[in-house]
Amino acid sequence: MNNKVYRVLDLNLSQQELLVNETLFHNANGYLGVRSCFEEGYAPGLNSVRGTYINGFYDIAPMKQAETLFGLVEDKEVMLNVADTQSVSLKVCGETFSMFQGEVLESERILDMKAGITTRRVVWRSPAGREIEITVNRMASFLRKPLFLIDYRIKALNFGGPVTLTSTHNAEVMNFADKCDPRLAQSAIRQLSVTSCEVRGDESYIVSATNQSGLSVCSGVKNLPSKPCRKETCREGNAANCRMETDIRAGETISLAKYTVLTDSRRFADCRAAALREMARTAAVPLQELYDEQRAYLDTFWKNAVLEIDGDADLTCAVNYNLYQLLQSAGRDRYSGIASKGLSGEGYEGHYFWDTEMYILPFFALTNPEIAKSLLSYRYATLDKAKENARRLGHGQGALFPWRTISGRECSGYFPAGTAQYHINGDIAYATATYWLATGDIDYIASEGLALIIETARLWIDLGCWYRGSFRLNDVTGPDEYTCMVNNNYYTNVCAQYNLRWAVKAVKLLRESGFDDAVEKLRVTDEELKAFAEAADGMYLPYDSERGIIPQDDSFLSKPVWDVPGTPREQFPLLLHYHPLHLYRYQVCKQADTILAFFMFGFGRGYDAAVRSFDYYERITTHDSSLSLCVFSMVASMLKNHEKAYAYFGNSAMLDLKNTYGNTKDGIHTANMGGLYMSIVHGFGGLRIREDGLHLAPAVPEPWEGFRFSVTFHGNRILVEADKNGCGCTLTEGESVSLTLYGREYRLDRARPSCRAALEASK
Amino acid sequence: MNNKVYRVLDLNLSQQELLVNETLFHNANGYLGVRSCFEEGYAPGLNSVRGTYINGFYDIAPMKQAETLFGLVEDKEVMLNVADTQSVSLKVCGETFSMFQGEVLESERILDMKAGITTRRVVWRSPAGREIEITVNRMASFLRKPLFLIDYRIKALNFGGPVTLTSTHNAEVMNFADKCDPRLAQSAIRQLSVTSCEVRGDESYIVSATNQSGLSVCSGVKNLPSKPCRKETCREGNAANCRMETDIRAGETISLAKYTVLTDSRRFADCRAAALREMARTAAVPLQELYDEQRAYLDTFWKNAVLEIDGDADLTCAVNYNLYQLLQSAGRDRYSGIASKGLSGEGYEGHYFWDTEMYILPFFALTNPEIAKSLLSYRYATLDKAKENARRLGHGQGALFPWRTISGRECSGYFPAGTAQYHINGDIAYATATYWLATGDIDYIASEGLALIIETARLWIDLGCWYRGSFRLNDVTGPDEYTCMVNNNYYTNVCAQYNLRWAVKAVKLLRESGFDDAVEKLRVTDEELKAFAEAADGMYLPYDSERGIIPQDDSFLSKPVWDVPGTPREQFPLLLHYHPLHLYRYQVCKQADTILAFFMFGFGRGYDAAVRSFDYYERITTHDSSLSLCVFSMVASMLKNHEKAYAYFGNSAMLDLKNTYGNTKDGIHTANMGGLYMSIVHGFGGLRIREDGLHLAPAVPEPWEGFRFSVTFHGNRILVEADKNGCGCTLTEGESVSLTLYGREYRLDRARPSCRAALEASK
Repeated sequence: MNNKVYRVLDLNLSQQELLVNETLFHNANGYLGVRSCFEEGYAPGLNSVRGTYINGFYDIAPMKQAETLFGLVEDKEVMLNVADTQSVSLKVCGETFSMFQGEVLESERILDMKAGITTRRVVWRSPAGREIEITVNRMASFLRKPLFLIDYRIKALNFGGPVTLTSTHNAEVMNFADKCDPRLAQSAIRQLSVTSCEVRGDESYIVSATNQSGLSVCSGVKNLPSKPCRKETCREGNAANCRMETDIRAGETISLAKYTVLTDSRRFADCRAAALREMARTAAVPLQELYDEQRAYLDTFWKNAVLEIDGDADLTCAVNYNLYQLLQSAGRDRYSGIASKGLSGEGYEGHYFWDTEMYILPFFALTNPEIAKSLLSYRYATLDKAKENARRLGHGQGALFPWRTISGRECSGYFPAGTAQYHINGDIAYATATYWLATGDIDYIASEGLALIIETARLWIDLGCWYRGSFRLNDVTGPDEYTCMVNNNYYTNVCAQYNLRWAVKAVKLLRESGFDDAVEKLRVTDEELKAFAEAADGMYLPYDSERGIIPQDDSFLSKPVWDVPGTPREQFPLLLHYHPLHLYRYQVCKQADTILAFFMFGFGRGYDAAVRSFDYYERITTHDSSLSLCVFSMVASMLKNHEKAYAYFGNSAMLDLKNTYGNTKDGIHTANMGGLYMSIVHGFGGLRIREDGLHLAPAVPEPWEGFRFSVTFHGNRILVEADKNGCGCTLTEGESVSLTLYGREYRLDRARPSCRAALEASK
Repeated sequence: MNNKVYRVLDLNLSQQELLVNETLFHNANGYLGVRSCFEEGYAPGLNSVRGTYINGFYDIAPMKQAETLFGLVEDKEVMLNVADTQSVSLKVCGETFSMFQGEVLESERILDMKAGITTRRVVWRSPAGREIEITVNRMASFLRKPLFLIDYRIKALNFGGPVTLTSTHNAEVMNFADKCDPRLAQSAIRQLSVTSCEVRGDESYIVSATNQSGLSVCSGVKNLPSKPCRKETCREGNAANCRMETDIRAGETISLAKYTVLTDSRRFADCRAAALREMARTAAVPLQELYDEQRAYLDTFWKNAVLEIDGDADLTCAVNYNLYQLLQSAGRDRYSGIASKGLSGEGYEGHYFWDTEMYILPFFALTNPEIAKSLLSYRYATLDKAKENARRLGHGQGALFPWRTISGRECSGYFPAGTAQYHINGDIAYATATYWLATGDIDYIASEGLALIIETARLWIDLGCWYRGSFRLNDVTGPDEYTCMVNNNYYTNVCAQYNLRWAVKAVKLLRESGFDDAVEKLRVTDEELKAFAEAADGMYLPYDSERGIIPQDDSFLSKPVWDVPGTPREQFPLLLHYHPLHLYRYQVCKQADTILAFFMFGFGRGYDAAVRSFDYYERITTHDSSLSLCVFSMVASMLKNHEKAYAYFGNSAMLDLKNTYGNTKDGIHTANMGGLYMSIVHGFGGLRIREDGLHLAPAVPEPWEGFRFSVTFHGNRILVEADKNGCGCTLTEGESVSLTLYGREYRLDRARPSCRAALEASK
């Protein structure tokens, strides 16, 4: 069984199924993404989110506030749907191919995660009885970012005759809008205007400009049929259609290679020239070579990101599906992060949230540190805007990263559940430290990371105040959006404490390593470091000694408890059925908040308090956010509650593949995908990277025989293989590495690349 | 000196002055209001808010939220500017009269508060040297609600020749919009569409319908010149213009009586028929008789509302000006309350707030109880909508009155500083009790008042929760909008306590008086009454024993103190210069909050704690709201800090007349006007109405020789005359009354109508 091939029969043509599959089988490479719509379109009346996206390519749309207040955001960035190049229509002997006419004899969709290709395979019988097999491979090249390829093959099964293929390149596009769902755009606005549309031989190039953001994008298309044919490319309005006519013999296969290149003005000074250049380069490469280089890229990726579950190939496949989507979603340059829906849909309008740092970056830090670094670099590139954002909020110093954004400006319209989530600052600092600990890449910290840590730390100092001997953070919102604008949210405070401590630590470490310049550049003074240290030491961390648990914030526990089990199922998610003010008055959590702090920063008040807290929050958490299950899984693992850990994990693994949240049509849930990885590697695997090194303590879930994963630590790749009896570690790349397995230290090198410890050693 | 005539020279034709005078000299009668614009208009380029309004006549305008959340309000009601009938243009011998051409020799505006008339008097020399005197009386009839009258007189001073008057009736109108001020409409939308425009002889009638609210309005105009002339009324588009030509001799005066009637479909089943009927009735009455009945109405008003300051006629005039505006502003039917700007402008879009109950109703309860009752009836008429509003907010029982509204639906776009101000419920209950105590009108309580008190009490029970033995109210906003969504706002809690206690008391009193039916109707159970009493007794009222002051809410005192004196003057009001989240993090108050509770409910924790609290909040209150100064004045009076009481009073008295808040152009500040009255009568006069009767304890401010005022208590009118030595009270209407003066009880009746006590008696 190949656990890197995900395959579904595609015979259910319901609206829901079509939209979900558009998402699940989208092709992306971190730069561009194309939803998996049928090339020939759907039957009239069926909706399609026929989207093609470029990571970080946006326009600015108005977002008027109901009441104007000083400093509120009145517009937002939105990821744009760019030119549609996935359309190919087919006519055989005068009959037009459609899944909604004639008879579909076979139909499946396949994602081959080793090849980096999706395949759609259909056997169709026309109304007149002609049978054809259509096989469409699609690929978003991981190596050639602007390239999206459609390899469209037709085999005549029982007839011969004329075939017409019409390949369209259409730039009259808009984003999808849904008036009824607050998580989508409310109204369709034409954000892109075509500025030029040209046909150059068998290629076409369309340049479009955004309304407000001053950006432009060029899409280029080239159609290469496998067989000589009558071919004509014509401009029709703002589209360019290429019509190809030929004859097919029974049993013959003919194909069309449709190359798309997308270049935007954020990355390319002259996007039209860049598109022409990319097209010329790509078309010169044989198709097979493009496939080969894609496969080679993925060979490396999977070597670094081994994740296998012994005895459950389906689950392994599902988990690998999730990891593959992370690779598809992650931006790799200073213009892009990871949108909450990746490049697979328009949910949350393509915005980047804290999901990137807290849920996804750990995966890349352990398997592909270059991407983790790039994600941090994206934040660094927006640091000046984060400083402006802080000023808008009234802060005299430091940077406040926006709650949701594309280019770095705050795009959150409802600030109590958006901008007020100051913890994003701590999350970014935490991710920076995580990257540093995992890679030892002090050069990056010196050049950019330190600024991220220091400017966020500075903001805490400005935000907080001393009261009764401790340092307090008032009027912020924690991760749980069902309680807003509170004082001393435990998660936020402990996150700020970590941020402040790392600011002091980073300066010390950089100075010790001779990077005084990096410190100088930020004008860090000793007084400031003293203030950081004092605020961290004095940080107020609420604790309820009566109940023996950690309160989510100062007043959380004084509120009545929401009756979660007694709430009818159709009332979830609560945010779609209750006024926010009502939710704020109850102990009810949309997602892990205090529990997430346990994973990141330890139990704080010891094991017993953590057990009590876990039980307490478990009862009042609805998991209405997709960022919750995986955290509960990890912390259950920490608490050795393996059954619960596994149950939470299971719910998390199938979230998109089974569309359990009902909104996979709007895009994949990237945070959950990263969280799924974490619940295996950090949860079951017990992996931690601390200042004293790499720690592992795998415990195999009861339903599994064992599991294995590879991680990279300071440039050394280690294969971790756990079974019911214990765990073995093998250095598979690098010179030597130290690690702690079940509490005991081992040193692996070329001479002795492996170690093994029995589970009993663990306590 | 007549202290009921307010007069200004009108020679400053600056933009600011024109707009302010439009407000200050507007005519209104509680039903309609017309801003005082020049009949002939201004010079090109000068803005005018040429408004005519009907109290409670509104359309629904979209108010999209930046992010859609469940239950948020997505549209709002707006008071509409209706047909413009104040336009009259004048031509003498071919020269058009304009204040911006030729020479203005004399110009003044007068408000005669005994006559109920404004007068504009201009002596003008035309560019060719012709001199005329123009005198324009305007009246909004207090007795004939639909009637607005313009009495336009021209005297030729040094010439004779042809005169042309053109009187316009124009229904192509819109509301004023100002993109830059969050307190005004942001964009102009045409909300009214003309459905018929007809000329009937010398009358014209235009009916317009609203876009969304399904309402219509008819305006009728009749032009009656004093002298036979060539007269023609023509329809021009959606306007009807009456052109009158005649000759004037030197020294001759000719005049035009222009009658406007306005009838809306909320009050009149067929508003066009009603307008025709009203016009016919009114035109049959000689002009002088209309003036006489207006004067007679005001004679009664002023007899009931005597307020004179010995030794300061100007101040007396200013105070009377304020009282007169309250009379002009107050709705008198179940469709209307008192807009925060009365009927004088479009600020806050004509919405009713708590201002009515807390700041204005006390004046009417003491001087004109019928109007006070009508204001409560308006709330009663919206009770069903308040119940719906409560459901929207998730409450299973009770009513939640909207923070801002016209017809009763919530129109607050930013709920943390709007809908979250639950105290409006307690304010309405408090006002109901106040009315009851002042009038003894138990019949009203039985028919409507009880429902107001019970349904608001029910909401507190649903909102609150028991925690550690006390009843708590979480996530509400108190009057101070610089701190939002807090737990246990002292003002709100004490207000809810009063509300709950009165619910129990009212049921008991009504049952004792044989009104069991009234109680039955509301299905009040004994269990419910027990819950009310327990919640009231158990109400948590925060106290800071360390500082010995009452905290505004649970966490207020833990925040840093805003440096009010150190904030540059141009940074006020703070709300226009700081993000709300920033303001929420400081101890800084937009207005009286805890201090207002002292006035309404006493000191709570004794005199010393009140003194300390007053000093504390004084330092951190910006008075950015116009509802603040008067409250500080009253509480300073309670604390016998007479100097401060007077200083706050003085700032409050001239707020509109001197445009000290800079926005009088958008309308008068009715709450401050009522508060000004309260700071004299309740503050300096020491008046309180409690369950044990009427209390008085006047203390004359140092700059005054004495002051007198009349109040009505249980149908008896009492004239209170205070001087530096003491105070006399005289029963001027009614049979007998008991009162407590400086702590000693007196009984006044026809035989012994007066009493006097010396100031020394007070302690």
